[in-house]
Amino acid sequence: MIPEATVARLPIYLRTLMEAAAAHETTISSERLAELGGVNAAKVRKDLSYLGSLGTRGVGYDVEFLLFEISRELGLTRDWPVIIVGLGNLGHALANYKGFGARGFQVVGLVDVDPTRVGEEIAGITVRHLDDLPVMASELRPAIGVIATPAPVAQDVADRLVAAGVTSILNFAPGVLSVPKGVAVRKVDLSIELQILSFHQQRQAAQHA
Amino acid sequence: MIPEATVARLPIYLRTLMEAAAAHETTISSERLAELGGVNAAKVRKDLSYLGSLGTRGVGYDVEFLLFEISRELGLTRDWPVIIVGLGNLGHALANYKGFGARGFQVVGLVDVDPTRVGEEIAGITVRHLDDLPVMASELRPAIGVIATPAPVAQDVADRLVAAGVTSILNFAPGVLSVPKGVAVRKVDLSIELQILSFHQQRQAAQHA
Repeated sequence: MIPEATVARLPIYLRTLMEAAAAHETTISSERLAELGGVNAAKVRKDLSYLGSLGTRGVGYDVEFLLFEISRELGLTRDWPVIIVGLGNLGHALANYKGFGARGFQVVGLVDVDPTRVGEEIAGITVRHLDDLPVMASELRPAIGVIATPAPVAQDVADRLVAAGVTSILNFAPGVLSVPKGVAVRKVDLSIELQILSFHQQRQAAQHA
Repeated sequence: MIPEATVARLPIYLRTLMEAAAAHETTISSERLAELGGVNAAKVRKDLSYLGSLGTRGVGYDVEFLLFEISRELGLTRDWPVIIVGLGNLGHALANYKGFGARGFQVVGLVDVDPTRVGEEIAGITVRHLDDLPVMASELRPAIGVIATPAPVAQDVADRLVAAGVTSILNFAPGVLSVPKGVAVRKVDLSIELQILSFHQQRQAAQHA
């Protein structure tokens, strides 16, 4: 079992590897892999040992091979169907976001409850009603559900996604979702990030007052 | 000096306090404040002691007073002007995002380099060219710069924002920005979140194979 903290660093190693591959480098050191991750080289070697990848002392890791190993470990060598719930500004942007498809996350379904949005076509997909979720789930077999709704309905949407068989949720709504064991939730909370920056500004202003 | 980890938890306490205030509760326990933050009650009390707020044994904290203290500490009792650079799908959504203004983050400027976007009006603001940034900065005094550009230009944009006097950056572009000491950067990286969910799906698929 790979520790969660290691999983969270694999995408960062992957990014460095992609840069190295783009620059036609064939080997890479654990020191170099450590740079973006905010860890030391020993931690990188430990992380990669979970993948069975040990590198060669004095040479480092083979870029292409490690790229493949990490991609496979992260499940990036296959496509994951995505359903987005909530087509306000953010959901709309996510539906149009080219970055999803490019990374193997194929948006296959869009869901809202607003009658003015249901039936609308966004990025070639027709928005359907939340009540259609069970039918959509059996048709589209979504792996990942994206919640871009207002906070008060996010838990209900999460419950419906889980009931429809979704086991990974990316939540943009503020607040904490409770989900059954075996369902993964990742959270992107813009207001918390903004508040942390606000604190920084506040402190700066106080220093210059 | 409040530790960074404490700063990162203050917005979470704030959210719990807002819920308590909305429910007309007048006092709140450190246990309750700990729930959302994934910490224990002792850590909450330690965090809040940095604000000089000690609560009352057996009673807890006064909701309204703690709300005010944390809001002030986070700089949320004043408005911070925000400039968004990069008006693709994501930047567009951010420019239209009502959540910014509601939280005291006033979008005052929009910037792009694409001639088809410069001059466009989004949410009542006309998009200006990146070269206008120094002029805009002296007019608008932005505190926070939001980078929603493609990754390859993000560092250049960060450099220009810093040169224009911006000291807080919210970065949506993949990759790491290097900024001078005194400039705060927070990062929202959708692709890393998606890759972590992908790993979870991959592991689930392997278990059910």
